[in-house]
Amino acid sequence: MAEELKLFRTWSSLYGLRAVHALKIKGVEYETVFEDLKNKSASLLEYNPIHKKIPVLLHNGKPICESLVILEYIDEVWKQSPLLPQHPYDKAIARFWAKFGDEKVLPSIWTVFVSQGKAREEAVGPVTENLHFLEEQLKGKKFFAGESIGYLDLALGWMANMISILGEIIDLKFVDAEQFPLLSAWMENFSDDPVIKECWPPRDEMLVKFKAIREQRLKLGA
Amino acid sequence: MAEELKLFRTWSSLYGLRAVHALKIKGVEYETVFEDLKNKSASLLEYNPIHKKIPVLLHNGKPICESLVILEYIDEVWKQSPLLPQHPYDKAIARFWAKFGDEKVLPSIWTVFVSQGKAREEAVGPVTENLHFLEEQLKGKKFFAGESIGYLDLALGWMANMISILGEIIDLKFVDAEQFPLLSAWMENFSDDPVIKECWPPRDEMLVKFKAIREQRLKLGA
Repeated sequence: MAEELKLFRTWSSLYGLRAVHALKIKGVEYETVFEDLKNKSASLLEYNPIHKKIPVLLHNGKPICESLVILEYIDEVWKQSPLLPQHPYDKAIARFWAKFGDEKVLPSIWTVFVSQGKAREEAVGPVTENLHFLEEQLKGKKFFAGESIGYLDLALGWMANMISILGEIIDLKFVDAEQFPLLSAWMENFSDDPVIKECWPPRDEMLVKFKAIREQRLKLGA
Repeated sequence: MAEELKLFRTWSSLYGLRAVHALKIKGVEYETVFEDLKNKSASLLEYNPIHKKIPVLLHNGKPICESLVILEYIDEVWKQSPLLPQHPYDKAIARFWAKFGDEKVLPSIWTVFVSQGKAREEAVGPVTENLHFLEEQLKGKKFFAGESIGYLDLALGWMANMISILGEIIDLKFVDAEQFPLLSAWMENFSDDPVIKECWPPRDEMLVKFKAIREQRLKLGA
């Protein structure tokens, strides 16, 4: 039986991109199923009945949900070009920062993005603090994983693309090269990597989408 | 050099207990450092400068933070009595439900605990839904991991102890044996397991502590 591998995602989701990038790095072939979150497919609801969210990786009929769980699964099943470091301590550090990215960095940036005036000014502090922690992690390294892209780079990969898109919309430079030289270099190295680069969603369409999301949030009094 | 292994925790934290249980199952000796969260030690702030939280596992001078990350680390360093399943898919499933426990089950139960009247009534629905998902996972099994205690049992272990403590305080049976026969049996099997049992914090002190937390939250208008 030929191996069945399908990735359910949307064109714009940066959680979905984690899996896209991982499979690309591993050189694994798969089929993409693009979902419309306003009209979720019966398959998505069947494969992720708990969260009803993308991404879902379907491997020989078995669904795997949650993007960081998917990354670990991909790394365990396809051993080529390892994403997680070998040593348990280095693994723990990578997992720690991936969780930090999702639980602290992303929400702090989002809060700035959907606020304005004094609220936005106040929200910038936590972002700066969080980015400083990440800056520290890059000392002496090109990527978070070292010389090549690994699990933590993919987990934080949304930043490399998203920060400049969100920043352009609200006219704010989140990652200033003087303040964050390492993070700034990482964003460039990561997003311009030939394997990574070809997977980014179209920037103009991302700008339109997130501008609309922001306007709607502000209208609702985010 | 003798191996240094210290666990920073509080007497009552159920996140800390995950590591306690894991090390106990593995038969690993270590030193406990009890923290007072109102007066955190310089060591805790040094070892977890990001979150300033327990638990922290210090292994030969290297700190590991975040309880689920610590569980994976313990399982990778001390191979005896494996906690995570062998197969990548089973691992992914265990990680998925551990995350679900922390992100959905725990907050939903906490919301019921710190609310009253109509708000509490409305908050019970999500708890029931979440517990039904867990009930499903126990079909044909004694523990979430199968015949013996594993990673997901430890990740959800707080439930076995905490649900009845919180329930007693607000006079609500979260896990009814008729509605949730498997979960109910799991709670008993897990909390009465000889290795697990001896690590629970004193129930009477837990009742006092969480009663006080609840009263304070209600006073502040939770």
